[in-house]
Amino acid sequence: MSAPTVPFTASPAIGLVCRACQAKYPLIAQHACWNCFGPLEVDYDPALLAKVTREQIESGPQNIWRYAGLLPAGVDPATRVTLNPGMTPLVDATNLARELGMKKLWVKDDSGNPTHSFKDRVVSVALTAAAQLGFDRFACASTGNLANSVAAHAARAGVPSIVFIPYDLEAGKVTASAVYGGTLVAIEGSYDDVNRLCSELTETDEFETTAFVNVNVRPFYAEGSKTLGYEVAEQLGWRLPEQVVIPMASGELLTKVDKAFEELVQIGLVDAAVPRVFGAQSAGCDPIATALKAGTDEITPVKPTGIAKSLNIGDPAAGPYAIESVRRTGGWMESVTDDEIRDGIRLLARTTGVFAETAGGVVVATLQKLLREGKLDPEAETVIYNTGDGLKTADAIDGRPTHQVKPSLKAAREAGLLG
Amino acid sequence: MSAPTVPFTASPAIGLVCRACQAKYPLIAQHACWNCFGPLEVDYDPALLAKVTREQIESGPQNIWRYAGLLPAGVDPATRVTLNPGMTPLVDATNLARELGMKKLWVKDDSGNPTHSFKDRVVSVALTAAAQLGFDRFACASTGNLANSVAAHAARAGVPSIVFIPYDLEAGKVTASAVYGGTLVAIEGSYDDVNRLCSELTETDEFETTAFVNVNVRPFYAEGSKTLGYEVAEQLGWRLPEQVVIPMASGELLTKVDKAFEELVQIGLVDAAVPRVFGAQSAGCDPIATALKAGTDEITPVKPTGIAKSLNIGDPAAGPYAIESVRRTGGWMESVTDDEIRDGIRLLARTTGVFAETAGGVVVATLQKLLREGKLDPEAETVIYNTGDGLKTADAIDGRPTHQVKPSLKAAREAGLLG
Repeated sequence: MSAPTVPFTASPAIGLVCRACQAKYPLIAQHACWNCFGPLEVDYDPALLAKVTREQIESGPQNIWRYAGLLPAGVDPATRVTLNPGMTPLVDATNLARELGMKKLWVKDDSGNPTHSFKDRVVSVALTAAAQLGFDRFACASTGNLANSVAAHAARAGVPSIVFIPYDLEAGKVTASAVYGGTLVAIEGSYDDVNRLCSELTETDEFETTAFVNVNVRPFYAEGSKTLGYEVAEQLGWRLPEQVVIPMASGELLTKVDKAFEELVQIGLVDAAVPRVFGAQSAGCDPIATALKAGTDEITPVKPTGIAKSLNIGDPAAGPYAIESVRRTGGWMESVTDDEIRDGIRLLARTTGVFAETAGGVVVATLQKLLREGKLDPEAETVIYNTGDGLKTADAIDGRPTHQVKPSLKAAREAGLLG
Repeated sequence: MSAPTVPFTASPAIGLVCRACQAKYPLIAQHACWNCFGPLEVDYDPALLAKVTREQIESGPQNIWRYAGLLPAGVDPATRVTLNPGMTPLVDATNLARELGMKKLWVKDDSGNPTHSFKDRVVSVALTAAAQLGFDRFACASTGNLANSVAAHAARAGVPSIVFIPYDLEAGKVTASAVYGGTLVAIEGSYDDVNRLCSELTETDEFETTAFVNVNVRPFYAEGSKTLGYEVAEQLGWRLPEQVVIPMASGELLTKVDKAFEELVQIGLVDAAVPRVFGAQSAGCDPIATALKAGTDEITPVKPTGIAKSLNIGDPAAGPYAIESVRRTGGWMESVTDDEIRDGIRLLARTTGVFAETAGGVVVATLQKLLREGKLDPEAETVIYNTGDGLKTADAIDGRPTHQVKPSLKAAREAGLLG
């Protein structure tokens, strides 16, 4: 918590501010308010944000750093600790829209990022800030995707890493963290247990110069998600969609995409109103959707179950803020079963060619449920977010050949392959 | 073989030409010469190629279609059947260069393509041509990556697909083909058996309107690989590297990257000489490297073994042409063992943050071997190609946590995590 404060070159960020009591702090490695224990977020100088133009962005690199003028760190390219994620495809989902009876539907597909999830965005911003703050080891508590990203970023940067995961993660995600050669610690417990341990570790002398991307540098980390809002607006030709459906783990991604849309309107880069924001959870872990439906913003923690492991945060830190975003914009939240998630993965793949991880299946299935319930308008232009890659959770679906035959025309004919 | 010939709008391609006897053909779905059975390739009008400028390319989309003026199909965006692959990162491999004692080393990392291999490039070009030629079903014989790509492209386009794979493929590659909902046929034999069956199927009435991307429309397909040469030149600021190391299955990728470099020099988009081209194979399937070393260009087919399944083509069609490229440019070929491949994957990941599939491990290990043998100059600027994603062959490496502990500070301390 006590790493040195150094200047963030040309950053529009001026400090941290408590989301609950509005107490202000300098740009330091801290995530909770000393007064009220509320979560801190980055505070910007609106005049500096307003200086950013469409032309400036469009002349930037084909990655998140084209929006550096709207982020807390990384304006100076030499300071970036990054795999250069971002500018992932916005796929025109014509076939899927037709099947669902929708007028216009897009898929923002983040599986093309360097480690194949949206986490590369938040990690790049967090580690760039962490390096500015003088940290010399990178760490995280992760449900898998974040582990992949932190380990890969550290390898590229040549910085040691120590990554903490629950012991029961998908094999693909374990291998895709271990391969980078850093320290990889499996914790015999849930993600919430992992997170708690990491919070304790940040308080020890031995971890004083270790940046946990989603603990002590969390305010910087969270800002990286804004780029998923900026890119959609730019890719639509500097327009906002009317509705968005976003997966929720901690709930932070949803709040930051909403914040990105608000910023774009405020600084005049887009004209339209902010989209209606919809949140998607798995039925095995839906404390935020449950609270919204109960008409409260008090989250009751749950013990997560189910196949959407990347969303399995039972005690979601940004839950109340996600509920606030959804209420304010006129959206809604839903949760879906494991079978619905599997069907959602297959539906998305069959109609768009995008192979999503379980979290993407959650979003597609939630979209279908919201349409059935009449909560989401099929006539309104909609963007759904796929935040990760199907290869990482391939075990979740039953992917077998439709036929198995011997290598001869005769066998092919007997198997019915020749009509 | 007899699909109708239709105009390829504004394409610089003027026909097909036999690589062996130079017989000429129109732009039809055919891959072998009627005179001599030699392989056909696309023939261009040099005057049309020479019209392409750097400015034209740079103002194009951030994918392979920025080079449409140098490809046989897809100049008109409305004709493209594509997931828009390409413009993947050229990673400055500083740490890896240092470990290997090299002056300047880059990794062209194609794992970021939509289905995470370079096959999206060739499939996009093949299917765009196939649609122009009137085909209404898409197919391939595949060692895995191609299957993923054809199935995904067909899903996006809303066209039926039928994909043929060996029955013993990696589970990840099977799932990542099956999920798109097309017909997926496992053949009880090797890739070479699969390929032979597909050649027979193209001759049947039932498959008359089916485009096998790497059989009957192979000449168009192969051209897509040229974009891996163009992009490297553009990403280096319109310069060519001095050496490249390329994995070999059929050998076609190597010949087409070499062809791309030659074209760029011919039409004046770069000044430098064509790089020395090096080929990489696995010891379990190295018929091309074996022939080169024996001083012949007669390939003796082998029965493939080993973990680099995406390179396991025992009877490589473009082998003699790959040998010609390597001899002409002053390069060489090597093959490496499964253990060297695994070490290569880990070395690349640890030093660059790139998690490669086994074919990428083959390239890194071959680079090391060529350096040890003094065949490759450590002082010369070098580009190595990673053509696929580690998640698809994750089983090939042993990816386990370094520690497993209970969720407490005490347990973390006992495990030595606090120094």
